[in-house]
Amino acid sequence: MHIKIILIGKIKEKIYDSRIQKYLDWLSSDSKFEIVIIKDSNAHKIEHQISKHKKNNFFCVCLSEEGENLDSNSFSKFIFNNGEKIVFILGGPNGHPETLKRKTDFNLSLSKMTMPHEMAALVLTEQLFRAFSIKKGSKYHRE
Amino acid sequence: MHIKIILIGKIKEKIYDSRIQKYLDWLSSDSKFEIVIIKDSNAHKIEHQISKHKKNNFFCVCLSEEGENLDSNSFSKFIFNNGEKIVFILGGPNGHPETLKRKTDFNLSLSKMTMPHEMAALVLTEQLFRAFSIKKGSKYHRE
Repeated sequence: MHIKIILIGKIKEKIYDSRIQKYLDWLSSDSKFEIVIIKDSNAHKIEHQISKHKKNNFFCVCLSEEGENLDSNSFSKFIFNNGEKIVFILGGPNGHPETLKRKTDFNLSLSKMTMPHEMAALVLTEQLFRAFSIKKGSKYHRE
Repeated sequence: MHIKIILIGKIKEKIYDSRIQKYLDWLSSDSKFEIVIIKDSNAHKIEHQISKHKKNNFFCVCLSEEGENLDSNSFSKFIFNNGEKIVFILGGPNGHPETLKRKTDFNLSLSKMTMPHEMAALVLTEQLFRAFSIKKGSKYHRE
């Protein structure tokens, strides 16, 4: 499996960065993981990323508060039911433009609440780790 | 205003603890904040906390995935429309028993996804900071 996370803007705070890296390290035996940083939230650049990844058979997921809310079990099924390649596109401080949300394969919401993009990246990587744990039946996720 | 957060179990990871403390420091000029740690998730101990806080006119909020999902603007209104005293009770690794959820004034969900309790504490404190920012009309929360 190959999972990519596209972030608009760097993760400036080390505490988020180190925690995210820890989850990605734990996941590295199960999947290829990449974090791609795009400097600014220019809609054309993001559209370019979406079409590039779609051509390469990535399932494109846009993250925003208005997307669909899945629980952790449904998110785990979602991860394993949409092919071998999946890319998550997180918005910058201003979120995603509406036109962009229509170009992706799925709009996902981690929470109805607005989070700083660094916190959203942390919540997403933890959910990915949880999704693999659920699939493997490990004790990490308790029902 | 007086806001309390009751956590079942310590925040073991320093990176969460330091970030939570930072939000609480920023909030300290607007409200009295306290974090209370309860060692284990014994239902009687939590019930005792709920009845003690209710007697002291605290509005009691229980956090769990099955609670109501509010967006950040609604959460801000919620904070300022329920009196001067509010207490949030976060579950431990096994969540809250059903009987307990019925004793609180409101059941809130930060996300449908299951988060580690330390991460939930971080998301909650950031939302509290955001709630005050929205109320004050600061630029922190962008629409």
